[in-house]
Amino acid sequence: MTTKPEARLQELRLTLPVPAKPVAKYKMAVLVDRLLYVSGHGPACIDDKTPVTGRVGADLTTEQGKESARAVGLNILSTVRNTLGSLDKVTRLVKTLGMVNCTADYKDQPQVINGFSELMAEVFGEDAGVGARSAVGMGSLPSNIAVEIECIFEVTT
Amino acid sequence: MTTKPEARLQELRLTLPVPAKPVAKYKMAVLVDRLLYVSGHGPACIDDKTPVTGRVGADLTTEQGKESARAVGLNILSTVRNTLGSLDKVTRLVKTLGMVNCTADYKDQPQVINGFSELMAEVFGEDAGVGARSAVGMGSLPSNIAVEIECIFEVTT
Amino acid sequence: MTTKPEARLQELRLTLPVPAKPVAKYKMAVLVDRLLYVSGHGPACIDDKTPVTGRVGADLTTEQGKESARAVGLNILSTVRNTLGSLDKVTRLVKTLGMVNCTADYKDQPQVINGFSELMAEVFGEDAGVGARSAVGMGSLPSNIAVEIECIFEVTT
Repeated sequence: MTTKPEARLQELRLTLPVPAKPVAKYKMAVLVDRLLYVSGHGPACIDDKTPVTGRVGADLTTEQGKESARAVGLNILSTVRNTLGSLDKVTRLVKTLGMVNCTADYKDQPQVINGFSELMAEVFGEDAGVGARSAVGMGSLPSNIAVEIECIFEVTT
Repeated sequence: MTTKPEARLQELRLTLPVPAKPVAKYKMAVLVDRLLYVSGHGPACIDDKTPVTGRVGADLTTEQGKESARAVGLNILSTVRNTLGSLDKVTRLVKTLGMVNCTADYKDQPQVINGFSELMAEVFGEDAGVGARSAVGMGSLPSNIAVEIECIFEVTT
Repeated sequence: MTTKPEARLQELRLTLPVPAKPVAKYKMAVLVDRLLYVSGHGPACIDDKTPVTGRVGADLTTEQGKESARAVGLNILSTVRNTLGSLDKVTRLVKTLGMVNCTADYKDQPQVINGFSELMAEVFGEDAGVGARSAVGMGSLPSNIAVEIECIFEVTT
């Protein structure tokens, strides 16, 4: 309502990575009526520090996992803008499935996925940017990426 | 059509726990049009017997996992009532993702998640209370909870 | 637009297995408005060669896992036809969650789930048959099946 997402992104001095391309037989996102279904995204390679691969609880700390989840968020924002033309068309984040590549005894998946969720709140606001969510530990993820997240946005068309 | 969910709950002598609060950056449920997206819920602490944490196949039996899944159901019912004002606004259960914290060789995830699904059938009826579902084994779950379930309800607004 | 799915199935000389029945308290698919939510399906037993159970990366190769995912696809097509009366009522595949029973160090989940996704593209076309998707590794799956897939189709009613 106040600052729109694209302007907010500028305020935050965030630059989105190049939109990711499918690594297999799928689309990055599919729009049905007013819901945008976003495919599972991994962390984009955004700098030299943010971890892309590794298992949280063994190779990566919770804080590193969280940075990785934030990188997934930037990657997803790039897909959303690329699909809709502008992030300003997003009405709200509806639902997130946050999947963490972690050890069997790891317990802090919610803190890891907050790296994604806090970014969404920063860009879309504390109400529209915060949705329903599950944050869980997977047996493994493609190419050993640290985090994979899929989500659904409500959009205006 | 016959007994409404709130009356049915009374018949079953079920008391719902206090609505859970988010443990991280998310909402317990988000309503979009006629669909209520419910976040991943863990087992509420409803008595001294029902297990909240532990791995099915190692720390917990299938029966204990099923009790835990039923506790997740009570917790979700509490969120639904808290969000909509009344369970009577639920038209049907659409879809459930039932996630079991279990050992790699565990095979009875459907029996565990039935603890949730049978409760939904008791409260909303054999048609409206039975939806599409997946029941799967996770690598790990937050705080080592035994079961995490997310679901979608169709509701009247 | 060109060849309809049922005719396409004939061209491909594909025979669908008998529709699977729920193994627990759920429905194989639920229709809400124009979206068909399909429950998690395992591989149908379609011949003597296609693996139904086993862990990819240990018991099964990537190629065997992919065959198993294709068998899941045939099984899902059977459910969709059984629910809607005809595959020609499918407008598009919206979203797929592809869950692979694999070892913790396995990395090629997308290739496995392509067994499902390529079948959908063959039957529904390169646009309508390709949707959003996540392909991930699970800790375990019911009855030790190799692959479990749930998905959402947009349909005409």
